[in-house]
Amino acid sequence: MQFKIVFEEAFALPTSLFNNSPIGFTRANASPEEDLNTNLLDIHGHRLRQMDENGVELMILSLNAPGCQAVADPAAAAAMATSANDYLEEQVLKNPSRFAAFAALSMHNPIQAADELRRCMTGKKGFVGALLNDFQSSGPDGNTMLFYDDSRYDDFWKVAAELKAPVYIHPRTPTPLIDAQMWKERPWLNLSVLGFANRVNMHLLAIITAGALDRFPDLKLVIGHMGEHIPFEMYRIDHKLDRERFPTMKMRKDKLVRDYFGDQVFITTSGHFSTPALTCSITEVGARSILFSMDYPFESIPNACKWFDEIQMNQHDLVDIGRNNALRLFPKLAGEPHNLREESAWECQVGGLRNGDTIYGLYNKSFNQRLS
Amino acid sequence: MQFKIVFEEAFALPTSLFNNSPIGFTRANASPEEDLNTNLLDIHGHRLRQMDENGVELMILSLNAPGCQAVADPAAAAAMATSANDYLEEQVLKNPSRFAAFAALSMHNPIQAADELRRCMTGKKGFVGALLNDFQSSGPDGNTMLFYDDSRYDDFWKVAAELKAPVYIHPRTPTPLIDAQMWKERPWLNLSVLGFANRVNMHLLAIITAGALDRFPDLKLVIGHMGEHIPFEMYRIDHKLDRERFPTMKMRKDKLVRDYFGDQVFITTSGHFSTPALTCSITEVGARSILFSMDYPFESIPNACKWFDEIQMNQHDLVDIGRNNALRLFPKLAGEPHNLREESAWECQVGGLRNGDTIYGLYNKSFNQRLS
Amino acid sequence: MQFKIVFEEAFALPTSLFNNSPIGFTRANASPEEDLNTNLLDIHGHRLRQMDENGVELMILSLNAPGCQAVADPAAAAAMATSANDYLEEQVLKNPSRFAAFAALSMHNPIQAADELRRCMTGKKGFVGALLNDFQSSGPDGNTMLFYDDSRYDDFWKVAAELKAPVYIHPRTPTPLIDAQMWKERPWLNLSVLGFANRVNMHLLAIITAGALDRFPDLKLVIGHMGEHIPFEMYRIDHKLDRERFPTMKMRKDKLVRDYFGDQVFITTSGHFSTPALTCSITEVGARSILFSMDYPFESIPNACKWFDEIQMNQHDLVDIGRNNALRLFPKLAGEPHNLREESAWECQVGGLRNGDTIYGLYNKSFNQRLS
Amino acid sequence: MQFKIVFEEAFALPTSLFNNSPIGFTRANASPEEDLNTNLLDIHGHRLRQMDENGVELMILSLNAPGCQAVADPAAAAAMATSANDYLEEQVLKNPSRFAAFAALSMHNPIQAADELRRCMTGKKGFVGALLNDFQSSGPDGNTMLFYDDSRYDDFWKVAAELKAPVYIHPRTPTPLIDAQMWKERPWLNLSVLGFANRVNMHLLAIITAGALDRFPDLKLVIGHMGEHIPFEMYRIDHKLDRERFPTMKMRKDKLVRDYFGDQVFITTSGHFSTPALTCSITEVGARSILFSMDYPFESIPNACKWFDEIQMNQHDLVDIGRNNALRLFPKLAGEPHNLREESAWECQVGGLRNGDTIYGLYNKSFNQRLS
Repeated sequence: MQFKIVFEEAFALPTSLFNNSPIGFTRANASPEEDLNTNLLDIHGHRLRQMDENGVELMILSLNAPGCQAVADPAAAAAMATSANDYLEEQVLKNPSRFAAFAALSMHNPIQAADELRRCMTGKKGFVGALLNDFQSSGPDGNTMLFYDDSRYDDFWKVAAELKAPVYIHPRTPTPLIDAQMWKERPWLNLSVLGFANRVNMHLLAIITAGALDRFPDLKLVIGHMGEHIPFEMYRIDHKLDRERFPTMKMRKDKLVRDYFGDQVFITTSGHFSTPALTCSITEVGARSILFSMDYPFESIPNACKWFDEIQMNQHDLVDIGRNNALRLFPKLAGEPHNLREESAWECQVGGLRNGDTIYGLYNKSFNQRLS
Repeated sequence: MQFKIVFEEAFALPTSLFNNSPIGFTRANASPEEDLNTNLLDIHGHRLRQMDENGVELMILSLNAPGCQAVADPAAAAAMATSANDYLEEQVLKNPSRFAAFAALSMHNPIQAADELRRCMTGKKGFVGALLNDFQSSGPDGNTMLFYDDSRYDDFWKVAAELKAPVYIHPRTPTPLIDAQMWKERPWLNLSVLGFANRVNMHLLAIITAGALDRFPDLKLVIGHMGEHIPFEMYRIDHKLDRERFPTMKMRKDKLVRDYFGDQVFITTSGHFSTPALTCSITEVGARSILFSMDYPFESIPNACKWFDEIQMNQHDLVDIGRNNALRLFPKLAGEPHNLREESAWECQVGGLRNGDTIYGLYNKSFNQRLS
Repeated sequence: MQFKIVFEEAFALPTSLFNNSPIGFTRANASPEEDLNTNLLDIHGHRLRQMDENGVELMILSLNAPGCQAVADPAAAAAMATSANDYLEEQVLKNPSRFAAFAALSMHNPIQAADELRRCMTGKKGFVGALLNDFQSSGPDGNTMLFYDDSRYDDFWKVAAELKAPVYIHPRTPTPLIDAQMWKERPWLNLSVLGFANRVNMHLLAIITAGALDRFPDLKLVIGHMGEHIPFEMYRIDHKLDRERFPTMKMRKDKLVRDYFGDQVFITTSGHFSTPALTCSITEVGARSILFSMDYPFESIPNACKWFDEIQMNQHDLVDIGRNNALRLFPKLAGEPHNLREESAWECQVGGLRNGDTIYGLYNKSFNQRLS
Repeated sequence: MQFKIVFEEAFALPTSLFNNSPIGFTRANASPEEDLNTNLLDIHGHRLRQMDENGVELMILSLNAPGCQAVADPAAAAAMATSANDYLEEQVLKNPSRFAAFAALSMHNPIQAADELRRCMTGKKGFVGALLNDFQSSGPDGNTMLFYDDSRYDDFWKVAAELKAPVYIHPRTPTPLIDAQMWKERPWLNLSVLGFANRVNMHLLAIITAGALDRFPDLKLVIGHMGEHIPFEMYRIDHKLDRERFPTMKMRKDKLVRDYFGDQVFITTSGHFSTPALTCSITEVGARSILFSMDYPFESIPNACKWFDEIQMNQHDLVDIGRNNALRLFPKLAGEPHNLREESAWECQVGGLRNGDTIYGLYNKSFNQRLS
């Protein structure tokens, strides 16, 4: 598929590498092309070439996790956000037909976060929303966790809704003391294998069940990794959220969690290239709630794209998931400086027959190339 | 689900029962309530009560098969169409918030068929499209079959497209000589078990591959019974329709058959209440190509509706399939005398929580009722 | 379906109610028939009647969670296990064609746990395996958690494997200090909605990645709630368990986590009656890895059984999931005092036609009853 | 996947090319490697090399359609069968670890057909069953069609059951007069696009509903092309086969058509490499009823194998469909001269990790190769 739009894709500042130790996410015998630090710092070189080769038109960039969320000092966190956003605007404007930006935000102070989001969305160019890396580390030892279901964050959600800035809730590594008893000797489970999803799905449900989406009907939230288990659990979540047992839960009494999907909550395929999981998600939350993304450079661009391009699925849903849903979710993509528009299946080279298409493998074109 | 719209639903004139011998379609020990002739003749009694009880807001009625298509005499066929359409308008106008009409048409003469369709769509009230029962019987012995992929039927398709009148291609019993050698002693296979679908899927593909949809981009076709096998065969159909082997095939060289689904070709669930088949169809042709229908009185209204209402599926697609896709396909439903509009999942009582909803079985409401 | 076998089904001792506060799991306006304490204490009355009415032949009973796992004092925990197992044997032997037992075990001391398991499996009648409620609370304040991936538990796993006693890993409430910062004010998320699964899926993966299944190839583990998210995450789990990044992980270097399913790891449907989740699980782990269960009395028996009986699925897999897989997993069910055997689809009344079966809704029989 | 077994794979005698005009099945600009006549005649060269390259261990060969079924003269048809079978034995014995054979049979005389089948299964080596190309052409003009649901064919079915020789029902081109009125000017629909399946699904259902499987419980039938539409139609077929309307139908009154699948009826994936259709079939007839096959040389070996090898599915079902189900269906494969046995997922290189496996795309190995 041509003209795909992706948006759980990280870049790094030289200073943000410090917080991340990204090498921990890659395998020991990685080739030079797979070096995480190099790929995080690069935007216009190897990254863009791979986008060209794999049918990715536009990538929404975000500061690598945990970013500002790991900075316990409020002033330092805010400074990191400002500098990252300034740097990112500069990079996006070098090639705005291929890149856009998520704002990085310090979440110590909801009003300050809202101000920085407004600065990016209205004062700068190229920003289409924000990405938060789970909870904000806080406190003298950095071990206090700030969660955004607290009512004081309404000041932030209100502005995000007004600005029509969707907020991506991304996982992060826990603070050192969290779950220490269980997981310190099982680090392989604590990160992307399960721990990331187990923590961020709780945070997302905390925000939903706190009623933030009810108070701000224009607010839109996005989670990655095929929904961090939630589509598979949809039945059990609603089944067990008994309103009479939990009268203090503030979410509307007449709504199910599933009711928010497709209107205010969206999921991406980042890092979870499983067709059975995608099929289950389409049934449970609908194709309109799902958007293709990759998780570069923690994932391979060709691996992600080949998986997606070769899925045997009707063209309407494939093109919506690969591109057009993103244009509906991020209204800023349609304006300056990106000027994107929805494309038909034919324009995306999904479906249809072109010169040289062979008679088999009609679902996708790269499959034909493999056999020739 | 409330407010469902259905439209492969038959009625009969006293004179059309003669052509049909409908009793042959029901089982020997049917209860009085299941008597086909009675149910075909009834519109405002038992039929409407069952619609009320099962959440069906509107039913688009059509003359029972084979209708005019079995009348080999052109004048008699045209007269049957006229009288059926006049009668049907009268019935619909008795309760236009609950009923609409498909025009019955004699297909001996494409221009005459187009004239009658125009008379219904513009001169009468309550008509939203037409329903044809497969091929038109013709010739002195009635054994000549007229198929609508013949280029002279462009005169008809052109008008259907102009009038924005979708055309439903419904199966019918074959003429006596057709397939006589094989099937005369195996009548159970010749009808709804397999023969209906095997014949009507060929007729539909004949029309598509003849290029009718290319010449009239506003033309829309509908088939029932979960697509008469086609969604399951989508890969193989496109894979084997080799354009170089069949240079006389007129369909556009740059399109696949699957490209027409959701834009010009639509399927309904009539008579095929299989969730696995529906799931496969959603993957292959997309939820936007699928519409709920029942096939009353050859099917049970509660059986059809309970199956549909209890499907575990996201609300967006369920409400589209059960109602809103019909409003997009049949623009006349939005105007006088029906004045229907799209409804939200909440209004259709899909999703959400209401007083008395229990904590389990949240997918649907009738399931909860069963357990109380 | 007749002759179903289920086995995440709780009973309580009067003394175990104290640990559980089960009322917290039910809704405020529950009817007397839904009273959790009553239903936990009952075995041969209301419970058995509902089994009769819903086609459940045999139920494997287990002490209600958190059971012994919440007792921080080793002697008291062991005493609770002994008395629960003695009581349970007595109950099972009153009706061994309808009930069997999972041993309750104190997990403070792996050797003592193995001894108690051996006492149940060889010295007593009616025991077919064991059920553990996640981690063992330990320490002076009860806030130390013992996890069974620790190598000292090999003494336990070895005996479970020798005895051919599958071990069910069931969720439990956390100790007070766990996750305290995040979840104390969000109790609705901490239990069956998400917290149960998020904790127990980590514990299961900890045991697998510690290599316990490699060291004891006859060891079999079972988890409920449609696999506690794992089937949906199968791709991402194996994708991210990079062996080169985590050289201390002891699991075999030549196996994937998915390789254990169907041979040593099994899932049940308890409390998660979602057909889309079941379909996804069948694709990812295979029907042979899946077994029907309910989670009574935290779930409704008719709700669980009607869901399962009405799934539109081939008879082979339905009967395997509903019954025959249990006989393969628990070899003791085939011997004294239960004497169960595998049954055909016909015997289970799945598929086939019987006197009075109507012509629609052939997938299941209770659906027909609804319409008559 | 390694060690796949496939069995809707054609070869030709120089004399059988005459009946077939195989060039009509390929596209105009085929490369020399795609020349159908060449590939039909070849066994040990290009065909075997492609088997080696794509993980196919054994291919069951069959005479290209329509074969003996198109020969209206009984003696000539029998002579063709004899010479084809003699030639095929000779070829198989050149490499019996890689090839086996289906007997070709003239079906004019059931007793003669049974005799020839017995000659192949007991007097010759390498035969594991038979393949019939739909109906037998008969009569002076060749336009009489003999169908095998006629009770006189019980003499044939009885012997096939005794010999434990599964019979593959393969499609064929119709005789000139069949369907002449409709399809003579629409040749693209008459063959593999839809006509093949529409005719052979009727023939299979005719045999089943005539009760042949009831009278011979050891008889096993196989159909290709993902079941010739039947899995998708399973609900509607059983729903509409009303026993009271059709009292002369001889099939057992207490069975559904779906009850035969997995025990006596099996389907293959030949020529229909659609994952959505496969998923639907797994739900409706179960993985144990499905076997991988290709339809070489009418299909590409690498296209078929890459599709299958890359399906994201649990290892148990994938290895059953790709290999082990064939060993259960064809008992002769386990004996001389083939000596095959069931293999584990590990041996088939499905699942597991091997030296050089990269960290992504763990579902299959050839996918990894693409990216390196």
